[in-house]
Amino acid sequence: MTRLFNDPTEFADEMIDGFVSANAQQVRRVAGGVVRSTRTPDGTVALVIGGGSGHYPAFGGIVGQGLAHGAAMGNLFASPSAQQVESVATAANRGGGVLLSYGNYAGDVLHFTQAEQKLNAAGIPTRTVVVTDDISSAPVAEKHKRRGIAGDFTVFKAAAAAAEEGYTLDEVVRVAELANERTRSVGVAFSGCTLPGADEPLFSVPEGRMAVGMGIHGEPGIDETDVPTADELASLLVDSLLAELPDGIHSPEGHRVGVILNGLGSVKYEELFVVYRHVAALLQNAGLEVVDPEVGELVTSFDMAGVSLTLFWLDDELERFWRAPADTPAYRKGSVGAVQQLDPSEVQEAEAVVIPEADEASQHAAAVVLRAIDAIATVVDDNADELGRIDAVAGDGDHGIGMQRGARAARVAASEALALGAGAKTLLEMSASAWANKAGGTSGALWGVALSAVGEALGDEDAPSAAAVSAGITGAVDGIMSFGKAEVGDKTMVDALVPFRDTLAREVDGGAALADAWKRAADAATQAAAATADLLPRMGRARPHAEKSLGTVDAGAYSFGLIVQAIAATLVGKTV
Amino acid sequence: MTRLFNDPTEFADEMIDGFVSANAQQVRRVAGGVVRSTRTPDGTVALVIGGGSGHYPAFGGIVGQGLAHGAAMGNLFASPSAQQVESVATAANRGGGVLLSYGNYAGDVLHFTQAEQKLNAAGIPTRTVVVTDDISSAPVAEKHKRRGIAGDFTVFKAAAAAAEEGYTLDEVVRVAELANERTRSVGVAFSGCTLPGADEPLFSVPEGRMAVGMGIHGEPGIDETDVPTADELASLLVDSLLAELPDGIHSPEGHRVGVILNGLGSVKYEELFVVYRHVAALLQNAGLEVVDPEVGELVTSFDMAGVSLTLFWLDDELERFWRAPADTPAYRKGSVGAVQQLDPSEVQEAEAVVIPEADEASQHAAAVVLRAIDAIATVVDDNADELGRIDAVAGDGDHGIGMQRGARAARVAASEALALGAGAKTLLEMSASAWANKAGGTSGALWGVALSAVGEALGDEDAPSAAAVSAGITGAVDGIMSFGKAEVGDKTMVDALVPFRDTLAREVDGGAALADAWKRAADAATQAAAATADLLPRMGRARPHAEKSLGTVDAGAYSFGLIVQAIAATLVGKTV
Repeated sequence: MTRLFNDPTEFADEMIDGFVSANAQQVRRVAGGVVRSTRTPDGTVALVIGGGSGHYPAFGGIVGQGLAHGAAMGNLFASPSAQQVESVATAANRGGGVLLSYGNYAGDVLHFTQAEQKLNAAGIPTRTVVVTDDISSAPVAEKHKRRGIAGDFTVFKAAAAAAEEGYTLDEVVRVAELANERTRSVGVAFSGCTLPGADEPLFSVPEGRMAVGMGIHGEPGIDETDVPTADELASLLVDSLLAELPDGIHSPEGHRVGVILNGLGSVKYEELFVVYRHVAALLQNAGLEVVDPEVGELVTSFDMAGVSLTLFWLDDELERFWRAPADTPAYRKGSVGAVQQLDPSEVQEAEAVVIPEADEASQHAAAVVLRAIDAIATVVDDNADELGRIDAVAGDGDHGIGMQRGARAARVAASEALALGAGAKTLLEMSASAWANKAGGTSGALWGVALSAVGEALGDEDAPSAAAVSAGITGAVDGIMSFGKAEVGDKTMVDALVPFRDTLAREVDGGAALADAWKRAADAATQAAAATADLLPRMGRARPHAEKSLGTVDAGAYSFGLIVQAIAATLVGKTV
Repeated sequence: MTRLFNDPTEFADEMIDGFVSANAQQVRRVAGGVVRSTRTPDGTVALVIGGGSGHYPAFGGIVGQGLAHGAAMGNLFASPSAQQVESVATAANRGGGVLLSYGNYAGDVLHFTQAEQKLNAAGIPTRTVVVTDDISSAPVAEKHKRRGIAGDFTVFKAAAAAAEEGYTLDEVVRVAELANERTRSVGVAFSGCTLPGADEPLFSVPEGRMAVGMGIHGEPGIDETDVPTADELASLLVDSLLAELPDGIHSPEGHRVGVILNGLGSVKYEELFVVYRHVAALLQNAGLEVVDPEVGELVTSFDMAGVSLTLFWLDDELERFWRAPADTPAYRKGSVGAVQQLDPSEVQEAEAVVIPEADEASQHAAAVVLRAIDAIATVVDDNADELGRIDAVAGDGDHGIGMQRGARAARVAASEALALGAGAKTLLEMSASAWANKAGGTSGALWGVALSAVGEALGDEDAPSAAAVSAGITGAVDGIMSFGKAEVGDKTMVDALVPFRDTLAREVDGGAALADAWKRAADAATQAAAATADLLPRMGRARPHAEKSLGTVDAGAYSFGLIVQAIAATLVGKTV
């Protein structure tokens, strides 16, 4: 139950404000997240981590000496946008290059990958190591498909300590990859969690039951049992991890391991210690030597009740990094060296926006686009609860709130752009950027791609033709399919996009006015979305089993249908 | 909801085992709790804190450099016994004397006061500063009656830093008293908590409501409202604290304050940060300068959902102590100096028990006493759930579990004593000590006092007469009334004890055999207990409003009645 909030759509922002205010000795706010407030020697590799909010201390809480240099902090359970990651990494960069590291979730992969490309293009050498420690989320043969959970921490810790020692970017990458290979976690859950302003839990576990392998956003597990005793749980966790030794380790006997027994939120410290008592005994019985165990909350999931156990199989170098000191808001260890506070002028911030010149015809078109974006924001507002409800069936239930944040931000950005004299292309680009940035998550990124592609086709000169709009839509659909890696039939928004694109192109080619063509295309999209939505009753309200990890699936098709219908209404009477 | 445990009666012990196992760098286990595992310079004042378990990181989690030297860790929500406090303090003592500091709860006051007397008698200069920061729990004119909540931490921190600087015991006491005067807290609660093995919450708050001023064990608050927004809550907390400035401070303007925004368990870090954002703004608006705020969990109450705000009004000396470094399992700050691990041989442990000689007649009497204690343990086991249920009406619901732990431990100790040849007095003393030590809480202490007083009257020589037993019971009742400060009519176990004592004495004086006299006395006790219990329906299941803070009230009378009846059965056929 989340009880304390103001406007739920502002929760993540206000949380970051309060967090930074309480921890100014260690972190300072930049666009997109936080960076260290302390000085880092020039030439040091910067470790930039991130992910959705709601997992404190992940991710902002572990920024500081000996750990991350910056954290991109997305909205609740939603990936930060590429722009957020780029902004934080630019601010964190000290000239030694950037390592991006984060847990393996589709939305995060999309955005961090995009950011990596932009950073490299901007001359900041950037690499990525994705954390895949959750053994329940895919077979060992497909370790690259596994999710990242509390093992994020061991990978971050090792990479950060290597950077602190002056390792080069290549060397830090090597360490992080080895740490990821040497880190295995398994988790269980006893309850779900409820996001701010939500009436119902995002997901749940039946009372008295335990979901084995459930992910920190409620991703499906591999088994469900009665809640065991503390000792039985310890055995289950230890046995599961000892059944899968990392490459090159053939027996636990004589090995040294870092250990994290992590609580997800509502499991209390006292319970963790009771479980740890038996975990420690079992590891010792197996011949392992435990090094600096951590029993507490390193990755949470709001008020979810759950526990995970992580083993970090050390070699001498990894052990040095595991034992190294750190001083962050939520994690402190040993004694770090004296440090100076960073002068704000030393942080490179994003540059101010420059509005390219546009002719009067394109400024006029921009005003029409603003009305369309206004219509989007309104229809999303009106349907936010319903979108959330649909998304909760097979996704994480945040589609309504995410779309709302994105569309509202796009409307503000579009208004500002119009006031500054922007043409259609610039207005759409600024809206796209605002949408992706504020909405976070996968759908935010996809709408950013879409608006941006349409803008590209419309340009900042001349009144756009119906053909240009149709070309823009084609570009948007191509972009979404390429970015999101979904095909028709995957039950994603692509199922509605493709008939929309095809109908629009056919009608425009046949000489129809834009308003008429758009309306017919919108009808085709709505019909396709409804077909997708028809699946819902059969999917039931059980835990998500969707194979696709594009979080918004059918809800995305449904919202797309609503939006193109709303835009159709704004086009009535237009003569393009 | 507490889900992870083995045997609920072993929960606190197993929790301490796991806690010590995970934090061996900072703490080591001793009888009764933990002490630092690191070396403290000889002559340093030792700060010994403590209280019931279930409040992690209070109290064991804040033992370490810069904070406490030892923590007496009681059972769940139950005071540690005097013996536990004495044991921990003896182990923590480095020759500079001991400061005992803890939150102001009746059970803790009883046990720590007893321990203080014993420590002083044993030549360890010992003083006490009780923390009374909760402004909702009594008017300012009766600050000494207020409970201690998260403000425990500021008092401990200041006292510990003073000790670390080499202050004498008198000076550390002065600092702790000033810190307590300068510390004010106010708390709110949104839900109760559930102890291990319990079917129902110990206490609760209606869904959607907020109990203003509710204590960390569910003690009644001063108001109940709907759950406010985060900003409204921040205003409520700040306004409440600014309405009561400490002595000598006439305006917040220009003052410096340490701040703790404390979560009690289920309120998430993210929510705390959202609230803190506005707290910080309000404090700044009031002209205060915030020094090193702490936003997190410093005193919890299992999975209770609640928040408290603490202001610590600093002067230069207190600010130095507030800013001082610390390194404990749950709280680390800045960089502490290098430190050596303590050699276990340097810790003074309690001495082994010596069994005084006893004659055959007294050994025979001891065997009869063992049967009586066995009967106590059996009847308590059989009625543990019922005792918990009765206690939950007006107390904290742990009477059944506490009596069970105590009686079982007494039975084990009595068996061992008998096997070692103990007489009646020694067997009762060892049972008394085991009961008080294992049961914790007020009833544990009272039963310890009672068994010990009976033993004193029986001696280790000769078969005890009925008159000796009656004298022992009179001594026991005197001891309980003096220790517990309760009178007949207060609805405590005294209501059953006094008629028991009076009937027994009258019958024995009149020449009745012990078995007959005891049976009649037991009937009188049962009748009195039933009269006390009759109040229950009228008290309803609402939140406790009992004025007496002797937690077990009517349940104690009821269990006393059961016990003396069970003993009566063991005496049938005895010819004393």
